[in-house]
Amino acid sequence: MPQPTARLMDGTALARRTISAAADRAAEITRRTGTAPCLATVLVGEDPASVTYVRMKRNRCEQVGIRSLHVALPTTASTAELVDTIGALSADPAVHGILLQHPVGPHIDERAAFEAIAPEKDVDGVTMHSFAAMGFGLPGFVSCTPGGILRLLDAYGVELAGRHAVVVGRSPILGKPTGLLLLGRDATVTYCHSRTADLPAHLARADVLVAAVGRPRLILGEHLKPGAVVVDAGYNPGNVGDVDFDSAAARASLITPVPGGVGPMTIAVLLEQTVHAAGRQLGVPATA
Amino acid sequence: MPQPTARLMDGTALARRTISAAADRAAEITRRTGTAPCLATVLVGEDPASVTYVRMKRNRCEQVGIRSLHVALPTTASTAELVDTIGALSADPAVHGILLQHPVGPHIDERAAFEAIAPEKDVDGVTMHSFAAMGFGLPGFVSCTPGGILRLLDAYGVELAGRHAVVVGRSPILGKPTGLLLLGRDATVTYCHSRTADLPAHLARADVLVAAVGRPRLILGEHLKPGAVVVDAGYNPGNVGDVDFDSAAARASLITPVPGGVGPMTIAVLLEQTVHAAGRQLGVPATA
Repeated sequence: MPQPTARLMDGTALARRTISAAADRAAEITRRTGTAPCLATVLVGEDPASVTYVRMKRNRCEQVGIRSLHVALPTTASTAELVDTIGALSADPAVHGILLQHPVGPHIDERAAFEAIAPEKDVDGVTMHSFAAMGFGLPGFVSCTPGGILRLLDAYGVELAGRHAVVVGRSPILGKPTGLLLLGRDATVTYCHSRTADLPAHLARADVLVAAVGRPRLILGEHLKPGAVVVDAGYNPGNVGDVDFDSAAARASLITPVPGGVGPMTIAVLLEQTVHAAGRQLGVPATA
Repeated sequence: MPQPTARLMDGTALARRTISAAADRAAEITRRTGTAPCLATVLVGEDPASVTYVRMKRNRCEQVGIRSLHVALPTTASTAELVDTIGALSADPAVHGILLQHPVGPHIDERAAFEAIAPEKDVDGVTMHSFAAMGFGLPGFVSCTPGGILRLLDAYGVELAGRHAVVVGRSPILGKPTGLLLLGRDATVTYCHSRTADLPAHLARADVLVAAVGRPRLILGEHLKPGAVVVDAGYNPGNVGDVDFDSAAARASLITPVPGGVGPMTIAVLLEQTVHAAGRQLGVPATA
């Protein structure tokens, strides 16, 4: 049995620190303006997993001093109804951030719904504006999981400039923005995906490997370059990541556990960005 | 002396065909609506190269039956003046496409100016909306040079799915969108750039190599995987590309010349997208 040699990247601990800082900032904003930061959550239908995710996010908001405003639409809601709902939240000065829980169901144009989120309230980083801002290195909100990944890499002192980062996955809110953020940090970036011809050859060249594809234990220790930094952003049933942890930990230098790695950072970045959005909209500049 | 074995990708010929089709379509739109497609060109200052580029584009427009409307602002124009000018063109129903010649000068916020272009008139593919549309595979205008590169690859039957494409360069309107378009076509994509640690190692693995970095003859034949497809999108003084043509042509299977490769396709895509924008705005659907 391989011995783990990799150091763990502890997302739970880093998320705790990030959330604590967000709570302090939320308290400052509330004290100075009399208004608490507010995140609007929008849910279409009653998918149990989505209901749970939204409840979890709302609970976290309250713990941090962020007011949450929940809008539940029936499964039968149309794209137009959803767009109108989100448009009203975008225009509402009492709402500082908007989170549309996805997936929203096959009968709805998800992109149209996302685009109804005003860029300055897109604290989940899902709009085309936010994507391009990540691509161009402009100010804006990042997609929360990619943002959390970068935070973890920074917290553990991972050098990115000039190193070869391989991102497995190319979804609009995970793989693609993660690669753009890594590119913005001067990594050489390779995107692999389901159509990649020789995935093991690419994996073996990664100084930094981000698995973001949603295929349980796709990546094994034997695939890794010795000493690689491994970030597992996969989410699969049974709390299983895209990386086979035991074999990978025997070969990597740093690795995220699942759970307790990337997952906690996603919500931490959401809360942090919500507080940041509120601070900007309420005219409370961040103190140094 | 190495013997050229590569087949040439003839951008001049493909551009001629593309422009001819755009001219037919412009004539159809004009005939059916009484209004010719119109491209507004905006130039700040009097940089000789920029003046020449704009004149060239306007001449091509006229040859194709696209009306061109030129707006020249003085070098001293502010960001606000430029944004107002472009905003007015965005709102003007007689204008179907807008091209802002860049660079616009260091005192102007170029991004703010680009963002004043309405997405439906962004025929040069420079807005954040267009970038994200390329990233997400959504309908929209492509950046003209990346779009031209894809056209060339398609015209020469280059299979992209599952193949390894290496893009050297990561500028917002060339390298980055080219990589996103290739990724959208199911290539495995690696972005290299000035900070890449071992560029030759990456070049040697490219089935399809796109040079888009602006460094004369950076890429030599000896760097190439035998049989690679080489696209040279570099533009350097003296009509020199980023690829050393003679040595590369001895090793590649397909290669773009400079000049006569990517360059002519850029303007062809601009004209095509202008006509397409006009057709949509004037309610003349494309015939099959």
